[in-house]
Amino acid sequence: MAGLALTYSDEACAAALSDEALLQAMARFEGALAQASAGAGLVSVQDAAVIAKTCANATFDASAIALEARTAGTMVVPFLKQLRAQVAAVSPRAAEQLHAGATSQDVVDTALVLCLKPASTRVLALSAALGDAAAQLAQRHAGTRCMARTLLQPALPVTFGWKAAVWLSAIARCHGGFRAAAHSVRSLQFGGPEGTLSGLGAKALQVEAAIAQALGLAVAPTPWHSVRDGFARLGAEAAMLAGTAGTVARDISLLMQPEIDELAEPAGAGRGGSSSMPHKRNPAGSLLALEAALRVPGLAATLLNQLGPELDRGLGQWQSQWMTLRDLLGATSSALAAMGEVLGGLEVREEVMGRNLPPPGDDAAARAMIGRALEAWKAARAT
Amino acid sequence: MAGLALTYSDEACAAALSDEALLQAMARFEGALAQASAGAGLVSVQDAAVIAKTCANATFDASAIALEARTAGTMVVPFLKQLRAQVAAVSPRAAEQLHAGATSQDVVDTALVLCLKPASTRVLALSAALGDAAAQLAQRHAGTRCMARTLLQPALPVTFGWKAAVWLSAIARCHGGFRAAAHSVRSLQFGGPEGTLSGLGAKALQVEAAIAQALGLAVAPTPWHSVRDGFARLGAEAAMLAGTAGTVARDISLLMQPEIDELAEPAGAGRGGSSSMPHKRNPAGSLLALEAALRVPGLAATLLNQLGPELDRGLGQWQSQWMTLRDLLGATSSALAAMGEVLGGLEVREEVMGRNLPPPGDDAAARAMIGRALEAWKAARAT
Amino acid sequence: MAGLALTYSDEACAAALSDEALLQAMARFEGALAQASAGAGLVSVQDAAVIAKTCANATFDASAIALEARTAGTMVVPFLKQLRAQVAAVSPRAAEQLHAGATSQDVVDTALVLCLKPASTRVLALSAALGDAAAQLAQRHAGTRCMARTLLQPALPVTFGWKAAVWLSAIARCHGGFRAAAHSVRSLQFGGPEGTLSGLGAKALQVEAAIAQALGLAVAPTPWHSVRDGFARLGAEAAMLAGTAGTVARDISLLMQPEIDELAEPAGAGRGGSSSMPHKRNPAGSLLALEAALRVPGLAATLLNQLGPELDRGLGQWQSQWMTLRDLLGATSSALAAMGEVLGGLEVREEVMGRNLPPPGDDAAARAMIGRALEAWKAARAT
Amino acid sequence: MAGLALTYSDEACAAALSDEALLQAMARFEGALAQASAGAGLVSVQDAAVIAKTCANATFDASAIALEARTAGTMVVPFLKQLRAQVAAVSPRAAEQLHAGATSQDVVDTALVLCLKPASTRVLALSAALGDAAAQLAQRHAGTRCMARTLLQPALPVTFGWKAAVWLSAIARCHGGFRAAAHSVRSLQFGGPEGTLSGLGAKALQVEAAIAQALGLAVAPTPWHSVRDGFARLGAEAAMLAGTAGTVARDISLLMQPEIDELAEPAGAGRGGSSSMPHKRNPAGSLLALEAALRVPGLAATLLNQLGPELDRGLGQWQSQWMTLRDLLGATSSALAAMGEVLGGLEVREEVMGRNLPPPGDDAAARAMIGRALEAWKAARAT
Repeated sequence: MAGLALTYSDEACAAALSDEALLQAMARFEGALAQASAGAGLVSVQDAAVIAKTCANATFDASAIALEARTAGTMVVPFLKQLRAQVAAVSPRAAEQLHAGATSQDVVDTALVLCLKPASTRVLALSAALGDAAAQLAQRHAGTRCMARTLLQPALPVTFGWKAAVWLSAIARCHGGFRAAAHSVRSLQFGGPEGTLSGLGAKALQVEAAIAQALGLAVAPTPWHSVRDGFARLGAEAAMLAGTAGTVARDISLLMQPEIDELAEPAGAGRGGSSSMPHKRNPAGSLLALEAALRVPGLAATLLNQLGPELDRGLGQWQSQWMTLRDLLGATSSALAAMGEVLGGLEVREEVMGRNLPPPGDDAAARAMIGRALEAWKAARAT
Repeated sequence: MAGLALTYSDEACAAALSDEALLQAMARFEGALAQASAGAGLVSVQDAAVIAKTCANATFDASAIALEARTAGTMVVPFLKQLRAQVAAVSPRAAEQLHAGATSQDVVDTALVLCLKPASTRVLALSAALGDAAAQLAQRHAGTRCMARTLLQPALPVTFGWKAAVWLSAIARCHGGFRAAAHSVRSLQFGGPEGTLSGLGAKALQVEAAIAQALGLAVAPTPWHSVRDGFARLGAEAAMLAGTAGTVARDISLLMQPEIDELAEPAGAGRGGSSSMPHKRNPAGSLLALEAALRVPGLAATLLNQLGPELDRGLGQWQSQWMTLRDLLGATSSALAAMGEVLGGLEVREEVMGRNLPPPGDDAAARAMIGRALEAWKAARAT
Repeated sequence: MAGLALTYSDEACAAALSDEALLQAMARFEGALAQASAGAGLVSVQDAAVIAKTCANATFDASAIALEARTAGTMVVPFLKQLRAQVAAVSPRAAEQLHAGATSQDVVDTALVLCLKPASTRVLALSAALGDAAAQLAQRHAGTRCMARTLLQPALPVTFGWKAAVWLSAIARCHGGFRAAAHSVRSLQFGGPEGTLSGLGAKALQVEAAIAQALGLAVAPTPWHSVRDGFARLGAEAAMLAGTAGTVARDISLLMQPEIDELAEPAGAGRGGSSSMPHKRNPAGSLLALEAALRVPGLAATLLNQLGPELDRGLGQWQSQWMTLRDLLGATSSALAAMGEVLGGLEVREEVMGRNLPPPGDDAAARAMIGRALEAWKAARAT
Repeated sequence: MAGLALTYSDEACAAALSDEALLQAMARFEGALAQASAGAGLVSVQDAAVIAKTCANATFDASAIALEARTAGTMVVPFLKQLRAQVAAVSPRAAEQLHAGATSQDVVDTALVLCLKPASTRVLALSAALGDAAAQLAQRHAGTRCMARTLLQPALPVTFGWKAAVWLSAIARCHGGFRAAAHSVRSLQFGGPEGTLSGLGAKALQVEAAIAQALGLAVAPTPWHSVRDGFARLGAEAAMLAGTAGTVARDISLLMQPEIDELAEPAGAGRGGSSSMPHKRNPAGSLLALEAALRVPGLAATLLNQLGPELDRGLGQWQSQWMTLRDLLGATSSALAAMGEVLGGLEVREEVMGRNLPPPGDDAAARAMIGRALEAWKAARAT
C-alpha cells in the first residue's frame, strides 16, 4: 500500500507489508535457503555466501515483476529472473544454485509470514495502546454517571467508566485472539515442488530446521501451502479488532452529536476539518475506525473463501493473499491507531452527562464489573 | 432449521438450535433467574418455584411469537406473554415476578449460548471423527505412492498418507480453534435493562453468580450484549472447519474423476444417485461439504459485520444472530458429518495411484511430517 | 422459512418460498413436462394426464426428503420417490414416464424460479408502497425546514421534503433494478441430464417451448444451470433494496433520538415495546430494516460466490440457492414492509425541526430536485 | 493500484483508477466548478480561467495528502491545500474562489465517477473481446462432440460449441448488466455542504448543468452522496463479470488436466511457467481469472455494506469506495483480459474429445441453442 491508500492504514503497518518489504522478504528466504542448503552440504559454502549476501542487498523493479507475472502465472518467475541476474553478476555458478529445492509458493508464503511479523507486532502495539486508554477511562470514570441508551433511546443511568469497561472487555478478548492467531502463522512454508521436500533427500528436515531458525519461524507439522486456515484466522481476528475499534467509534460519534454532547474527540491542529464548513468539528478519528469496520468483513470473507485450493497447489486461492492481508491489516491498524488517539485525548463532559440524572443508586455491581474488566485486560496484556 | 433445510445440516446440530430448543432455553433462563432471585431474597421462594417449574414445562407457539415480534421489535415481548399466561394459570402473583431484573437481550443471548453448547459439542464430535479418519489414512498410507498435482497438473510423486497428514494438520488447528471459541462463548449474558444490574441493588452479583451456576455458564467480566466478538469468533472458526472439510472434499472429488480414478467415496444404498443417469456414482458427500464451504464465508461475514451495536443496545446487530449461527453451524456440521463418513469409508485405489510412478525415492521427510501431524492431532484432540 | 424466523421476513414473501411452495412447484414442473411430452408425442396423453393431475395435488414429507437427500446428494431423488408412489397409485405405467427427459437441476432450478415469481412480485409491491410513501413525504414537506447533519454534526438547513426525495431517488433506482433482475430470472431451466436435451431428439425445442408456456416462463438462449448470474443479480438487487430501506431506517432512528426528536415512528398497540422499560418508545420498524441491511451483504456475496460450477453441473453451487434466496428475499421484504409502514405513518415534528433554524433562504434548487425525484419515481413505478 | 498489485489487474484499467488519475479528476472537477460558476456570474471569468488552467496542469504529492488526510478526516482538505497553493502562485485572488460552493464529497465522488468512465469502458472492451472469442468457439465447434461432465463425472455427449454457447449466454447477460450499471453511475455528484446547493442561490441548477456538461456526466434527480446504490450495483455487476470469466477458467483448467487433455491454454514464451518444474504447462490465464473470482464477492459485499450512511453524510461509507472499486474493477479486468487471451488462442483437441464417444445423435436442439446464444450476444454487443 502506498500513495492515497495510506489514508486508510497506519503507516508503519503499511510499510511492513509494502511491495519493497515483500520482495526483500522473498530474497531473505532465498538467502536462508542457500545457507541452510550449504549447512547440509547441498550447496557450496562459497555459493551460498554469494547468494545470501546478494539477497540481503538485492533491489527489484516491482512493476516489471507484476507485468511478467501476468504471463508466468506467478510473480516468483520474474522475481527470480531479477534476483538471479544480480547473483550472476557476482558468480554465475552461484546463480545456478539459487532457489534450489524450493517452489514459488514456499517463497511467497514464507515472505508473507515474515512481513506479517512486524505488521502484527505493530497491530498489537496499537491495540495495547487502545486497551490501556480504555482502562484509564474505566478507572477514572468509575463514578461518572451517564445515561445508557438502548435502541438509541435513553434507558437508565450507568457510569461512563462502566461503558469503557465494556469496551475494554472486548478489546481484551480481541487483543488475545489476534496475538494467538499472529503467533500461530509465524511458521515456515517449505515443501518444494510437490510438498514433501523429496528433492532434498535425507537432508530435508535439516534444511527445513535451519531455514526456520535463520528466519525466526516455527516449523509446522506439514507444509501448509494447501491448507490456509492460518491466514483466514489472522484475517478474522484482525476484522474483530477493527470491528471493536469501530464499536468504540460508533459510540463516540453518537455521543459527540451536539444534541447529546457528552464526549468530544481531542481537538488539535487540522483535526476533523471540513472543506466547506470551517465551524464544524467532525469525529475524524471515529470516521477512520468506522471506515475500516465497514470494509473488514468482506476482506476477511475473502480469506475464508480461499481455504480450499485444488489438490496440492491451487489456482487463485493463495497468489494474492498478501494483497488482501495488506488491506486488512492496514484497515485494522488504521482503526486502532485512530481510536487509540481518540481515547487517549477524549473529552468527557461529566457535567453534561450528569445533567438531569437521578442521584447515584447502587453501583456496586458496575464497579465490580469494571474491576473484572481491568483484571481481564491485565491478563490479556501480560501474556 | 427444519424441513428441506435439513438437507444441509447435521440433524443433531439442527435440533440443538431449533425454534423449540431456543424457546425452551429462553424459558430456562427465566426459571434460573427466578430461583437465583429467590436465593437472594428478591422473590419469594414459592413464586420462584412456580416460575421455575412452569418454565421447565412451558410450550410455545413459535409462529405467533414471530408475528407479534415484528410489531414489538423483539420476540421476547410475545414470548413473555405466552410464558406469563402459563405461570399465571398456576399463580397470578408468581407471574408478576417473571423476568424481574432482566431485559430482552439477556434472555435471547443467554438462550442462544445455552443452545450453542450442545450444538458446538456436536460439531466437535464430528470434527474429532473427521480428524480420526484422516489420521488413520495418514498412518495406513504412509507408503502409498501417488502423484501430487499442482495447478491441476501432475507434479511429482508423494504419498497418499502424507496428503492425509496435510489435511489432518489443518483439522487439528481448526478443531482446537473452534473448541476454544465455543468454550469462550459459554458465558452468561445478564445486565438488566441498562447493563449494570442496578435494579438488583446489592444482590446483583449474587444473582448473576447463581444464574450462571444453574445454567452451567461462566461469568464474563462485563455483560457482552453490546460487544459481540464472541459470536463472530465462533462463526469464523465454524467457517474454517467447514472450509477445511471443503478442502478435503475438493481433493476427493477431483481424484474421483474417472479419468484419474484414484479415490472413491464409499458406495452404499442410495449414495450419490442421479435422477436421470443411474450409471453414475456421484461424490455426494463431497458435494455436501463443498455446498457448505461456499456458503459459510458470507455467513461468517455477517457476524463480523455485527460487532458494532449503537451504544448500549443496538438496532439489528444481535436480534437475528441465532438465525445466522443456526445456518452457520448447520452448514459446518453438514460438511463435517459428510466428510467424516467419506473419509471413514474411502476407497483408496493404490494400484491406480502407483501406476506409472517412478520407484519410491527418499520419503523420510514425508514420513516425519506424517508423524508430526499425528502428534499435533493427538494434542488437539486431547485438550 | 417458518417459525421464529418469520420474525425477519414478510409473511407473504416467506410463504411464496416455503418448503411447501417449493415442493409444489417441483411437482408443477413434472406435470408440465409430462404434458409437453405428450404434446410432442413422447408420452401417451393418458399417462400425462394422470401425472399432471397427481402433480397438481401431490403432498410431500419435507423432512423425510431432506434426510434422504443427504445420502442421495440431491433432494430430487427422494422427491421423485414420493411423487412416483402417488402417481403409481393411480397408474403404474404413468409412473414410469414421470421425469422422463429431465434432470434434477431442471426440477429444482425451475421450481425456484416459479417460487421467485410471487416472491419478487410481493417485494415489488412492498417497494412500490415504500416509494409512494416517500413521494408523499417529499411533496408534503417540500417547505419544511430542517437541519442537514453531516458526519453526525449539524451542517446547514435543508428541507425534510428534499431529504425524502433523496431517499426516493434511491428507491426508484433500486425498484427498477430489482424488477429488471426479477423479470430476467423468469426463464425455464431445461436441459436434461447433459444440458442439450438430446434425449428428446427432434422434439426437444417443442417440449421446451410447451413447458415454458405452461409455466409462464421465458426460454433462455441456453440452459443456465451452469451459469448462475441470474440469481446473483437478483440477490444483489434485493440487497440494494434492503440496504436502501436500511438507509431510511438509520436516518429515522437517528432523528428519533429524544435529544433530536424530529421524527417518530407511528405509535400503536404493541409497537416498539420494551420487555423491561415500558416507558420507552423504540424504533421497532427501523430496527427490522437495519437487521436486514446488516445481513444481506453476506447473503448476496454467497450468490456471487456460486457463479462458477465445475463444468456441466457443479458440486455445491446450486443445490442450496433456494435457501439463500429465501433468506435474502425474506430479509428484503421484511425491511421494505417495516419501512413502508413507518414512512406511511411517520410523525414529522415540523416545529422541532424548524426550531432555531435561520429564516428560509433560496430553496429553488431543492424544490427542483424534489420534482426530478418524483418524476424519476413515476417513471420507475410505471414501467 | 501500482507495483506488485498490478499482477492482478489489467494495466489500462488500473491506470484509469490510479492515484494520479483520481487526483487529476478531482482537479478537473474544481476547474469545471470554477468555470460553471463564472458562467453563472458567481466567479469572475478571469479567476475561473486561472483556476481551470491550473487545475488542468496541477500536480500532487499523494503520500503527503494521505498523511494529512488521516488527521483531517478527508483527503480533500490537504488536496485543496496543494491545489490552492498552485492557484495562488498565479493569482491569490483566484485561489480564494477555488472550491466555492462545493463540499469534499462532491469532489471525491465526481472524480471517482470520472475515473470509472475509462475504467468501465476498458472493462467492456475486454468483455466484448471475451464474448467474441466465445462466439467464435461456439460457431466453429458446433459439431465438435465432447463429453459433458456433471459433478465431475462423465455424463453424456454434447458439443464443445454448445458449451461455448452456454458461456456466451452468461457473458451476454453480464456484459449488458455491467454496461447498464456503468452508464447509470456516470452522473455528477454536486450538492454543496448540505446537499441542496443553497449556497449558489438561484444559479444552482445552472451551475450544476454546466459542470455536468463540461465533464460529460448526467444530472441525477438529487445528489446521491448519501444513497450509494450506484456504486454497489456497478460492483455487483463487476463481480458477475469476473465470476463468469472464472466459470470459463474453471472449466478450462479442468479440461486441461493431462488425464483429460481436451483443451489447452495457448502456449507462448513465458506462459504458465513453473519456478521449479520447467516441464509443466500451467493454466496461467485461468489462474488469474480464478484468483479474481475468489476475491470479488467480498469486495462487492463491501459496497453493499455501505449503502446506509448516517443522515446527510456518513462516517466511513463513502470515503474509501474508490479503493474498493479500484480493486474490484482491477480484478474484473484482470480476469477478462486473461480469459480473452485464453479463449482467443485456445487449443481444442477434437480428436481427444471425440475419443470413445458414441456416433453423433440428434443435436438439433444444441445447434438451435448455439444460434440463440449468438443472437443474444449480438444484441448485447450492439446496444
